[in-house]
Amino acid sequence: MSAQPVFVLVRPQMGENIGAAARAMANFGLERMRIVDPRDGWPNPKAKAMAAGAGRVLDAAQICDTTAEAIADCTRIYATTARERGLTKAVLTPEAAMTEAAAACAAGEKVAVLFGPERAGLENADIARAGAIVSVPVDPAFPSLNLAQCALLMGYEWRRQSATVEAPRAAGPAASALEIEKLGDHYEETLERAGFFFPEKKAASMRLSLRNMWSRLPLTRAEVRILHGILRQVVRWKERG
Amino acid sequence: MSAQPVFVLVRPQMGENIGAAARAMANFGLERMRIVDPRDGWPNPKAKAMAAGAGRVLDAAQICDTTAEAIADCTRIYATTARERGLTKAVLTPEAAMTEAAAACAAGEKVAVLFGPERAGLENADIARAGAIVSVPVDPAFPSLNLAQCALLMGYEWRRQSATVEAPRAAGPAASALEIEKLGDHYEETLERAGFFFPEKKAASMRLSLRNMWSRLPLTRAEVRILHGILRQVVRWKERG
Repeated sequence: MSAQPVFVLVRPQMGENIGAAARAMANFGLERMRIVDPRDGWPNPKAKAMAAGAGRVLDAAQICDTTAEAIADCTRIYATTARERGLTKAVLTPEAAMTEAAAACAAGEKVAVLFGPERAGLENADIARAGAIVSVPVDPAFPSLNLAQCALLMGYEWRRQSATVEAPRAAGPAASALEIEKLGDHYEETLERAGFFFPEKKAASMRLSLRNMWSRLPLTRAEVRILHGILRQVVRWKERG
Repeated sequence: MSAQPVFVLVRPQMGENIGAAARAMANFGLERMRIVDPRDGWPNPKAKAMAAGAGRVLDAAQICDTTAEAIADCTRIYATTARERGLTKAVLTPEAAMTEAAAACAAGEKVAVLFGPERAGLENADIARAGAIVSVPVDPAFPSLNLAQCALLMGYEWRRQSATVEAPRAAGPAASALEIEKLGDHYEETLERAGFFFPEKKAASMRLSLRNMWSRLPLTRAEVRILHGILRQVVRWKERG
């Protein structure tokens, strides 16, 4: 199996939709599903029944407790969402996103595509972990794509775009989502001590903006080390008094 | 309503699939459905229930006895099919077909896209009425697209090809090179004071790596302000002792 993105279903509700998403993936040769905290537990007989011939996608699916865990080893994360979000993040078409993703996979990166729960969609905390948002250009008067339809369209574009790609030259090995998460933790903790998150009523949105920035930037591992180093050094400096 | 293709469902079986196809059309702003000889008659309450907010597509649907009648006024006909056919006819991707269709509609032609019954697909007699075949590039190992999924992908390509292409929305106004330069200066000066560039023989390459990072990252103006703010705050923190 050549390199391909992981489809991450975040807190899916109905088993039928999980099964239909597995079928949609299989239609386009995608085999890697991860499921974050499925509402009705796992395994789910309704998912299995709906998946029919795509049952092996479900059999191989990894179940995770959190979105952070599901994307920990991935270096490039896309969040699918229908609505406008307040977050500062590029909004790509499925075509543009899967063109990038195909190039990234060819260059050895691990790509994840996040899909939200049926009704509510992804939460801002999930979206803040993504490098970019993907939005299907539906009619604003009737934008009611369901989970499996969204997976179908992303799978379709993946197959279209991955058919012929060249690997771009990278700036260096990309940082994984886990490394970005830890970088975010380091900054958040230190800045907390430094009194950065002030006034209190703005603190939550400042934290979110910061997480969003780290996820959005295409940081290499070396750059993550530099950014940790900067912070450690200013702390040392402060402590020397 | 500007010119758009008619989606023709040929002898559909389950009402639910007709309703789901109506939804898929409405997602992409398509409003013209024709139905040839629906198995369970018409109107169909199950179709209506599944269509939900796309009910007006069904309300306006024209019911026909034969495929010939359904496409009588159309000038360009596409037949969707999953399998190879013995017919001598161009086989197009959805993208290529809808690119042609968009140009044809803009030129005043009437375009129809034929979808076959759930199990069997279109008969050769229906396909023979089409100018070209459209085939979705699915994985040959799992080519099980259903009626509504096929309508969804065709609708998606219609909207992509018929819309004036919009540039991807950016994450926000990008920082200028001057702003990046000043950000680099701020970090370099502060980190110099903090003793970051150590040991001396590595200082030059560390400075270069840092400048390189700031230039390489697609920072927005807002992010540059955050990064200045972080540094100012840790200096204040240090100075409080």
